[in-house]
Amino acid sequence: MSPESIKDIAFPDSLFDERRARLRERMDRLRVKYLLVTKPVDIFYLCGFKGSAGVLLLGPKRARLWVDPRYTLQAREQSRGADVIETRGALSKTVGAWVRRARIAAIGYQDAHLTCAEFSRFRRESKGKGSGPRWNAAGAMLDERRMIKDRWEAERIRRAGALTATVFREILPLVKPGVLECDLAAEIEYRMKRSGADGPAFETIVASGPRGAWPHARASRRRLAGGELVIFDLGAILAGYAADMTRTLYLGTPTRRAGRLYESVAAAQRATVEGLRPGLRAGEADTIAREVLTQRGLGDLFTHSTGHGVGLEVHERPRLGRGDQTPMPAGSVVTVEPGVYVEGYGGVRIEDTVLIADQGPEVLTPAEKDPWFTS
Amino acid sequence: MSPESIKDIAFPDSLFDERRARLRERMDRLRVKYLLVTKPVDIFYLCGFKGSAGVLLLGPKRARLWVDPRYTLQAREQSRGADVIETRGALSKTVGAWVRRARIAAIGYQDAHLTCAEFSRFRRESKGKGSGPRWNAAGAMLDERRMIKDRWEAERIRRAGALTATVFREILPLVKPGVLECDLAAEIEYRMKRSGADGPAFETIVASGPRGAWPHARASRRRLAGGELVIFDLGAILAGYAADMTRTLYLGTPTRRAGRLYESVAAAQRATVEGLRPGLRAGEADTIAREVLTQRGLGDLFTHSTGHGVGLEVHERPRLGRGDQTPMPAGSVVTVEPGVYVEGYGGVRIEDTVLIADQGPEVLTPAEKDPWFTS
Repeated sequence: MSPESIKDIAFPDSLFDERRARLRERMDRLRVKYLLVTKPVDIFYLCGFKGSAGVLLLGPKRARLWVDPRYTLQAREQSRGADVIETRGALSKTVGAWVRRARIAAIGYQDAHLTCAEFSRFRRESKGKGSGPRWNAAGAMLDERRMIKDRWEAERIRRAGALTATVFREILPLVKPGVLECDLAAEIEYRMKRSGADGPAFETIVASGPRGAWPHARASRRRLAGGELVIFDLGAILAGYAADMTRTLYLGTPTRRAGRLYESVAAAQRATVEGLRPGLRAGEADTIAREVLTQRGLGDLFTHSTGHGVGLEVHERPRLGRGDQTPMPAGSVVTVEPGVYVEGYGGVRIEDTVLIADQGPEVLTPAEKDPWFTS
Repeated sequence: MSPESIKDIAFPDSLFDERRARLRERMDRLRVKYLLVTKPVDIFYLCGFKGSAGVLLLGPKRARLWVDPRYTLQAREQSRGADVIETRGALSKTVGAWVRRARIAAIGYQDAHLTCAEFSRFRRESKGKGSGPRWNAAGAMLDERRMIKDRWEAERIRRAGALTATVFREILPLVKPGVLECDLAAEIEYRMKRSGADGPAFETIVASGPRGAWPHARASRRRLAGGELVIFDLGAILAGYAADMTRTLYLGTPTRRAGRLYESVAAAQRATVEGLRPGLRAGEADTIAREVLTQRGLGDLFTHSTGHGVGLEVHERPRLGRGDQTPMPAGSVVTVEPGVYVEGYGGVRIEDTVLIADQGPEVLTPAEKDPWFTS
């Protein structure tokens, strides 16, 4: 992917104003006047600053972004619509003191992101001799908002998915008995970066033979061997947005056992992708996958949930798991990744990142699934 | 590095028992009977389990490790001295219920790691109809313990540092005008993995020309140009342990301005490394570096702290910053990384990971610093 094509999908500056305005509406409905944003991807989402440390305080009229001196230049260059304030002490101290002086009565905070210790520091600094503001857990206010991807975001994930699929296709000729799992993972991540990705969205998994029975195995120094299943779980981040994809291969001509596992997972994955539509509850998507595998007697081997949201983070809301009642609105981007795991033998998992569009599901990780065995 | 050499430094099983026993002594002194460990690297430190999700509860007699089904096999294979318990529901629910049923009176928790929302869930589940246990913030109990590296850990960091230095040497011939920053970063990370690293400890920084004035710039699609400074900040994780190193190069024959900046930072870095000895306070190390740069009129351009601990995490205690009173015991491993940053022009940073041994400082990232310019 050329640098130019990445530039094509630059966010318009107004996007950040719109995002803050939409959040503002939500805050007003919930009577939250101030919101302390401490999670870096949320800070990026709301004002465009990409640093790993900073505190954004959304107020009724203005947004203020505190950063330490490492990030001052970067914050001034990247942030849109927020006043950048450089601070030399701890952020909790400076921001807490500002909150105290401004005599703010109530303030929302990101309880799902802030640690107990950090929260204590903010609270202590904001108190002074008075009682300080009332602190309200803002819960998943922003996560819910971020579930709906606008067209700029969808396009970035589409390109991250295309890049991921391309890289997988490129390394296929290298997949053969004798190769180290970790060398394949290294090739994948190298090609992602060379193709313009920020980097891998997570540590690439290459899990062969019995190691494939660990759903979260990493790439190890094990050598691929003939007559085994191999799971590849990979995803690039491109311009800040992630994709997530899994393919399973068989080295050689599949045995009946491998074939049965593969076809069952493929059927479950296909049925679930095809079933995605705006308004479907996340747990209902999980049920589709689980029922296909249960009908084939493999339900007990499917030991994790069916998927998760993808965007600025590779794991976002919703969770496509048992009983999750979250409706998935149009614009949601989620993974569909059923799998089966057999201790001592291996595993099969197949995963795509999928956009739930009004007109139906769109697979954003377009790497072939057939044939799934190597000659 | 061959897989054999990595195997050489496998931890003896008894190490985990010893670590838990030492922590136990500390807990007993502080009258903490139970400790809820939720931070993955701490779980690894105490029982050897490397998964990204799990909860370890240290009790007076036994250690219990709860994992979800994705991690059951892995936990049974990796954990040493902990009872592995598989749970299908949320970990906070299962563990909370266990705490409730066991009628535990008081329990320590990792307030610096646990989010407010997670903590609320544990607390709610552990209550039932009674008042539930008293929850005590355990603070940095484990971080302090982890500051002192045993010989197995020091050896792993030494090898991570050697690998990092080797990779840097390997890519030197590629550093020339016209090359993209991100392509050099991709080469570095690829070679780390091919050399046996788990991966990069952080996103590799290659920051050339004016981008070098951002202390935390990432590698971008900017092309290197002659007559500019380029900062390389890289580090491998090997067998779970990180190293961290920065070198600055000049493309061509340095100007007086570049030379003055470089020599000043080099002098500050050298003086600080040489000054490291067991018992020195972290803030005193920072003062050494800051004074050298201030004497040369560059103190204001040194906008961050001098270093940080390195181990299972690339940023650990202590912080080598102004006023930090933490004494650094023998066995501490810290970075020394002064830098100067000139807006619109560029930056110089030089960093080593250093073991503070009884007999003196040992640099664990042995890449040359001279010559620092390219022909």
